[in-house]
Amino acid sequence: MSFASMWSAIEGVGRSPETGGYSRFAWTREDHDLREWFAGECVARGLDLTEDRMGNQWAWWGDPDAAAARGQKGVVTGSHLDSVPDGGAFDGPLGVVSALAAIDVLQAKAASDGWKPRRPIGVVNFVDEEGARFGVACAGSRVITGVLTADRARSLTDAEGLTMAEALQRAGRDPAQVGPDPATLARVGAFVELHVEQGRGLVDLGHPVAVGTDIWPHGRWRLDFPGEANHAGTTRLEDRRDAMLGYARAVLAARAAAELHGCVATIGKVAVQPGGVNAIPSQVSGWLDARGADEAAVRAAVADVSAEAALAGATVTEESWTPTTPFDSSLAVRLQRVIAGMPPAPGAPAGAGADPRGTETEGTAPSLGPHVGGTGEAGGSEAPDGGRPGGIPLLGTGAGHDAGILANAGVPTGMLFVRNPTGISHSPREWAERDDCRAGVAALATVLEDLAGEWE
Amino acid sequence: MSFASMWSAIEGVGRSPETGGYSRFAWTREDHDLREWFAGECVARGLDLTEDRMGNQWAWWGDPDAAAARGQKGVVTGSHLDSVPDGGAFDGPLGVVSALAAIDVLQAKAASDGWKPRRPIGVVNFVDEEGARFGVACAGSRVITGVLTADRARSLTDAEGLTMAEALQRAGRDPAQVGPDPATLARVGAFVELHVEQGRGLVDLGHPVAVGTDIWPHGRWRLDFPGEANHAGTTRLEDRRDAMLGYARAVLAARAAAELHGCVATIGKVAVQPGGVNAIPSQVSGWLDARGADEAAVRAAVADVSAEAALAGATVTEESWTPTTPFDSSLAVRLQRVIAGMPPAPGAPAGAGADPRGTETEGTAPSLGPHVGGTGEAGGSEAPDGGRPGGIPLLGTGAGHDAGILANAGVPTGMLFVRNPTGISHSPREWAERDDCRAGVAALATVLEDLAGEWE
Repeated sequence: MSFASMWSAIEGVGRSPETGGYSRFAWTREDHDLREWFAGECVARGLDLTEDRMGNQWAWWGDPDAAAARGQKGVVTGSHLDSVPDGGAFDGPLGVVSALAAIDVLQAKAASDGWKPRRPIGVVNFVDEEGARFGVACAGSRVITGVLTADRARSLTDAEGLTMAEALQRAGRDPAQVGPDPATLARVGAFVELHVEQGRGLVDLGHPVAVGTDIWPHGRWRLDFPGEANHAGTTRLEDRRDAMLGYARAVLAARAAAELHGCVATIGKVAVQPGGVNAIPSQVSGWLDARGADEAAVRAAVADVSAEAALAGATVTEESWTPTTPFDSSLAVRLQRVIAGMPPAPGAPAGAGADPRGTETEGTAPSLGPHVGGTGEAGGSEAPDGGRPGGIPLLGTGAGHDAGILANAGVPTGMLFVRNPTGISHSPREWAERDDCRAGVAALATVLEDLAGEWE
Repeated sequence: MSFASMWSAIEGVGRSPETGGYSRFAWTREDHDLREWFAGECVARGLDLTEDRMGNQWAWWGDPDAAAARGQKGVVTGSHLDSVPDGGAFDGPLGVVSALAAIDVLQAKAASDGWKPRRPIGVVNFVDEEGARFGVACAGSRVITGVLTADRARSLTDAEGLTMAEALQRAGRDPAQVGPDPATLARVGAFVELHVEQGRGLVDLGHPVAVGTDIWPHGRWRLDFPGEANHAGTTRLEDRRDAMLGYARAVLAARAAAELHGCVATIGKVAVQPGGVNAIPSQVSGWLDARGADEAAVRAAVADVSAEAALAGATVTEESWTPTTPFDSSLAVRLQRVIAGMPPAPGAPAGAGADPRGTETEGTAPSLGPHVGGTGEAGGSEAPDGGRPGGIPLLGTGAGHDAGILANAGVPTGMLFVRNPTGISHSPREWAERDDCRAGVAALATVLEDLAGEWE
């Protein structure tokens, strides 16, 4: 099962013949087909497939519970298979396919060299990462870590008014099972997610693969502009309360505030009541997405937009806010070094600790704080010294990932980014060259070999 | 069947318990219930119910075909029962209920005084006036007059992607029947539509009822703003092509242009692709509705908005344009006079012509051109002379009506407007006082008595 044949097997699932974009939403037919495909690939590799209490799929090479009895945890990689509306082929699936391809590399190594993983290796397919159907991103990892409560998850509704509980039932699942799953999380000693880059950082740096440092602070705000429904043809301008006007000013204010404060701010979703061509809008709701390397800058931009919205009488509701999420800094240095073919921890005693966050690299690892300045995944570290051992770049990201949820839940976590030649993502035009994908698989296999083979 | 009991019979149909607004869309369950109610009311009055090739319901007191054999046409009143989304109770139904109540007045007169209509009197319920479901206003009258072709009508789609042809089939109707219906139109010698006012003209003028002069020139334009889908968190501001920004500028430009040129312009409907909170919009479409007393002013406002939109690379498509639609000017004067209790045509010989547009009032009627200045239905004629015989105000309107479609098809047409204390329409807050509704019924009955009894 080569990378190419796995890619071919799923490239038709949920693809629009018009745009070439993907619509693969949680608990739909398309999602089901992808889950079945994933299960089949895992079985073909002799992995043991399990599901957690949210339906995330975990496939193990080696027995994680037997390992736990020895005081060991597993090394997990993977990503998600769902998409945004009319999304690209790579965001999510690249991480899953690369994980399976990396298993192939290691299984071949095991067959030819007699290499054996000393820890169990897991591959995960997280459900509902994009939140395209129910509005909450990373729902799969949020539920099992307890960040999203089972009750709130079950009551989320999709565009047709169907609750997640109803959607689960229609997919043949039991909504009562949904909930935190500490037993599953306890098996994960380290998680490394490979993902297509969603900016142009690696294009500028001339590298196919980077190691992630952190997820930028980010949040969503709902802006509700009040108006008064009335006939668009017969109501004098001076008698109108048109909710669309305040909304339009807020859209422009968001862009201006982002430029001023050096972050990004976007209003990409809007809902209008009553929404008729000949009706003055009585309510317009816009959703503001704001992120940046610096929390204070993001907060300042949102304050500017809120002030503009308040002039139109709007209410502003913070729907979510996530501070900077740093990935494990010593793990990141280790990933850099092993990808570059260097010893994992120069000068450190082998087998020093059972946790990659342990003391073995402490003191030799540079501080990997959030990047300040730059946007998206652009702006990798250029330092030729310890900040970039082996020349592998470090990148922060403005995108949320399941890796961020796991990092916040205390799991030692890292990310690998694969170069995106245009930087375009969440679009049918999202792309990664096949050679870069191969470089990603090779890097991931090296990382897994290191973490599973040497790590204790 | 009093006005009040008819009103009670339908006030629950399609009403939202939350807002009190109505959703009564063509060929839905609610529409079906209202059509059944209408049919029952017609049967109870001994009227002969027929349907034309679009399913508009026509109920006749007297035989229009026998009249045609005598060289006579009928006098028709009525309106529609469908609504905009979350609309008011009066827009449409007031005209239908008042028509039936006016029939009651005349049937009582026939029973007590021995009065008999010399021409057949018809009551019509036009289907799909608001166009809320399939996007084309006045679809019922447009199809039978041939303005909307049968093929285009059948292929219009609703928000669920259902075509009108499919919706007709689900409602138990034959889409193949849809088409122009000259035989039905040939029965109509004059059409008078009563409607709730949708502005504050009559509030300012202190009258419960006005006579319509014309429908303002109006049109709809679709503005398509191009962008590039991309991730809202990772794409640098300078790399973005965000379609929402151009849209927002066009919304504000529309308001400014309307103020500048003295007309109204509204963007009340918007569609965003892909529409995700974390996705930069790749396409935003806005629908511009513009109207005014003066065609050149409306055209100038639309040109301003188009110029602003062009800066963002948008394409502007004219979806509809209707020049000023004058109602029959001699009929309007006649309505004014008979409502005021004056002889229909002072100095004119009785029975001079078979057509109300005939010579009987020619020369004595003032010119009733479109009002210039003012907005909506505000700005009635204040002239104490022939421009306002009997003190009954004249009003132009910014709203489209089936009466306008019939007027353009050559049917002598007039309108009566009933005072709206707030001017609010297309809203749950739309209102008319019961006394004003009674005044409307009385005026309509007087008009029908005149036109059906004296008109030849």
